[in-house]
Amino acid sequence: VPHLLSHIVDALGGELRGSRDFEVARLASLEHAGQGDLSFCSAKQPTLALRQSRAGCLVLSAENYAAIAPNLPARAFVLVSDPYLYFARLTQWWKRVQGVAANEPLIHPTAFIHPSAHLAADVRIGPFVYVGPHVEVEAGAFLGPHSVIEEGVKIGEGTRLMSRVTIYASCQLGHSGLLHSGVVVGADGFGFAKNGDEGWEKIEQLGGVRIGHAVEIGANTCIDRGTLDDTVISDGVKLDNLIQIGHNVYIGPHTALAACVGVAGSAHIGAYCTVGGAANIFGHLRIADHVHIAGTSVVTRSILKAGHYGGFFPLGEKAEWEKNAAVVRQLYRLRERVKRLESPPLTSAIQK
Amino acid sequence: VPHLLSHIVDALGGELRGSRDFEVARLASLEHAGQGDLSFCSAKQPTLALRQSRAGCLVLSAENYAAIAPNLPARAFVLVSDPYLYFARLTQWWKRVQGVAANEPLIHPTAFIHPSAHLAADVRIGPFVYVGPHVEVEAGAFLGPHSVIEEGVKIGEGTRLMSRVTIYASCQLGHSGLLHSGVVVGADGFGFAKNGDEGWEKIEQLGGVRIGHAVEIGANTCIDRGTLDDTVISDGVKLDNLIQIGHNVYIGPHTALAACVGVAGSAHIGAYCTVGGAANIFGHLRIADHVHIAGTSVVTRSILKAGHYGGFFPLGEKAEWEKNAAVVRQLYRLRERVKRLESPPLTSAIQK
Amino acid sequence: VPHLLSHIVDALGGELRGSRDFEVARLASLEHAGQGDLSFCSAKQPTLALRQSRAGCLVLSAENYAAIAPNLPARAFVLVSDPYLYFARLTQWWKRVQGVAANEPLIHPTAFIHPSAHLAADVRIGPFVYVGPHVEVEAGAFLGPHSVIEEGVKIGEGTRLMSRVTIYASCQLGHSGLLHSGVVVGADGFGFAKNGDEGWEKIEQLGGVRIGHAVEIGANTCIDRGTLDDTVISDGVKLDNLIQIGHNVYIGPHTALAACVGVAGSAHIGAYCTVGGAANIFGHLRIADHVHIAGTSVVTRSILKAGHYGGFFPLGEKAEWEKNAAVVRQLYRLRERVKRLESPPLTSAIQK
Repeated sequence: VPHLLSHIVDALGGELRGSRDFEVARLASLEHAGQGDLSFCSAKQPTLALRQSRAGCLVLSAENYAAIAPNLPARAFVLVSDPYLYFARLTQWWKRVQGVAANEPLIHPTAFIHPSAHLAADVRIGPFVYVGPHVEVEAGAFLGPHSVIEEGVKIGEGTRLMSRVTIYASCQLGHSGLLHSGVVVGADGFGFAKNGDEGWEKIEQLGGVRIGHAVEIGANTCIDRGTLDDTVISDGVKLDNLIQIGHNVYIGPHTALAACVGVAGSAHIGAYCTVGGAANIFGHLRIADHVHIAGTSVVTRSILKAGHYGGFFPLGEKAEWEKNAAVVRQLYRLRERVKRLESPPLTSAIQK
Repeated sequence: VPHLLSHIVDALGGELRGSRDFEVARLASLEHAGQGDLSFCSAKQPTLALRQSRAGCLVLSAENYAAIAPNLPARAFVLVSDPYLYFARLTQWWKRVQGVAANEPLIHPTAFIHPSAHLAADVRIGPFVYVGPHVEVEAGAFLGPHSVIEEGVKIGEGTRLMSRVTIYASCQLGHSGLLHSGVVVGADGFGFAKNGDEGWEKIEQLGGVRIGHAVEIGANTCIDRGTLDDTVISDGVKLDNLIQIGHNVYIGPHTALAACVGVAGSAHIGAYCTVGGAANIFGHLRIADHVHIAGTSVVTRSILKAGHYGGFFPLGEKAEWEKNAAVVRQLYRLRERVKRLESPPLTSAIQK
Repeated sequence: VPHLLSHIVDALGGELRGSRDFEVARLASLEHAGQGDLSFCSAKQPTLALRQSRAGCLVLSAENYAAIAPNLPARAFVLVSDPYLYFARLTQWWKRVQGVAANEPLIHPTAFIHPSAHLAADVRIGPFVYVGPHVEVEAGAFLGPHSVIEEGVKIGEGTRLMSRVTIYASCQLGHSGLLHSGVVVGADGFGFAKNGDEGWEKIEQLGGVRIGHAVEIGANTCIDRGTLDDTVISDGVKLDNLIQIGHNVYIGPHTALAACVGVAGSAHIGAYCTVGGAANIFGHLRIADHVHIAGTSVVTRSILKAGHYGGFFPLGEKAEWEKNAAVVRQLYRLRERVKRLESPPLTSAIQK
């Protein structure tokens, strides 16, 4: 179903130029947008993609509008100060108005709810969900198909579990959360004491997991429960897919971790950090606020100063990098050789 | 149940030498095969393992047969041009004929099928499967136990979901696919716009996932839906376990990714590529056809030329590699020192 | 519910000093323990955290007790030879005595058990579990909510599947195991033969997975079935979350792998090894007993000698490490330049 552009601008703001009765068929990228579609450009200067776009409607800055609008086939424009943020809100608006009127039952007849669980009146529970004893779920929450909510869990207002999510006993989720399929919250941290040749003696993990408000967690990501205290994920944290968060970890507000990141036990990560995909953070260290780690980097020590950090072996053609790797294997000897060259032995100086 | 070797050769071809009424008890590796078992050798020359094998039956090349057969205890041989490919087909034949006559019900009574779903007549649905509204499933498909198929999903002919698979709304799977347990197709891509100190504003992911024919996806692998357009996995692609495919990624036909690989958003990978385990591919870059990436490598730029690429820090004994890593930390200074040594300062030349 | 310290010492041993009727409210870390809590110190010398701890009760070595006890506010002490091991056992005791009297039904009415399955009398089966044909489950085992147990699986005494675990057909688990949510045991190994431009021909994986006794497996970890023989996980092995174990891998007794480790096919890892988080082990190689691999390292060759190994690119500030990486890209040339400096060309010597 298309939507009137004027309705969008009424809801989200922005300055409309051109056809007010433009009907938006789709939101699309600059490359793929056609004459019925809306797209956006967040670059400071007009990009090639913008110049070539056949989008019927464009969200852009007043500067880009002034620079290029007359040369574009678009029939409507929305001028805003931050096109990317505007576009984010537009996707939310779009999803909401497109939303199918869910005539599914509020609590699916195949779900099993323990009689001691307390669910707010309008909680929706999908097929085959298991809700254990003493669970508390607040208004507007959604527990997707095949989720497992163990004893004593608390789930805040409007938080959604998409499907096949497990929340272990005694963990807490704040309001407005979104947990994707396969997420596991509260499995045991990896804790064992060595018992000589007998192997490993398990340290039972007696803490829980506390997740703040407006936290999003990607598919198949795992957050372990704490050993004694809780593992803590603060408000506004965004975790991508297949991330591992070890026991006793603390992640500060509004920090975002891309997919496949590993955070070892008891690491303390500050607020407003970003960690690129597949980076790994060792245990028991401290990362300050506003630290940005490049993808695939390895953090082995605390980072106490805000800034951008990274480190990974550069890619090369096979023959090249194997030769380089061979040098790395003896790199400290190369440095010694350079040192010797810099300070020629006394005898040789005398001989001269 | 053992199988007559002649039946195998009738079904799969190859030139039988020796005992036609040989009964194959097991398929086994050269090392473990006994006198009732069939094994194979795909090496160009006879290997030590072949020379020492006690297999009763061997699949090998005519060259290896000529070189070594009289010295082997095997009573039967199958001569083929590509023993490895022949063996692959034999495993398929073996599994098929061993296949238990599934006297399970076609649609398990514990499954929940939405009344608006359309299933072909001979689709098999396992226990506790949830099939949402407007889902379409073609002939011969199998939805394993505990799978979750959301609204509007299409599943092609003969595609099998082993168990505990989630397919989010509006995604499509081609025919002859195989998805292993825990796979998540179509969770939200990781997209947020910064909203100053307020944190992150979600970009709803409005695209889907289109998966081609004969695609295999390993356990707990995640493929995110596109932001506006679809994420695309082409025909014949093979994905191992615990792989992350970000939003808007395109993977070309017959490309294979080993376990734990991460592909960031909007990467475009060509056809007939291979990516080794735990390699990571950054977002928004382009990889040509026939590119082969070594395991654990990091691809940060486009690769426009077919070939073999790699790069990772070499392993060493703890004391050694720590010394080497210390040099890496100041490597560009070492280069400067070498440069200075190469061009001695003018003054010093004059002093000479 | 608090517990009398004397009960703890009666059950687990140790020499009690101070208040025998001390009631332990919580087990807590040195930092967070209050006057009603029990904590421990496993360091050889008194640490700062111990000196500052307000714990009411402390488990420590006789040496540390002698050195510092009078200066601490604790009212009770337990003297033991290995405080960390003692603490591990205490967490187990604590969890056991806190254990809710499970008045849940032994076999949940929503579970589906195939009539040909054989369950010991006191096996507990959670909600929505599917138990396939010919499955055998021994005494005291627990199959958590939403688990999928395929045909012919065997599960040993007291082994617990927490929830949403899949065990593929014909795999075996020993006794006293613990499998966390999302674990997949026995999915197909990644095996294909190249069929020219046609793409990949599947090699059916006909082996199984054999898991020993007292094995713990973390959330969303995957262990693939063998191609012909079995993948083997020996007694006492501990696997953390999101680990990938390829087909035909062997892991020796009491080896522990931290989260996100990848082990490629046919690798053979010895006993009493430890592998740090996100390390990767290539296929078809051999690792001796008592080998310890640092997190994020890449093992590309066999390691035949016990010891500590590692290797990863050091982290740096963005500008620094990019300069270093640029040198790495041409490192073998730098070595050549050093070589030339070391042996000046003959002609130049003559010219002198």
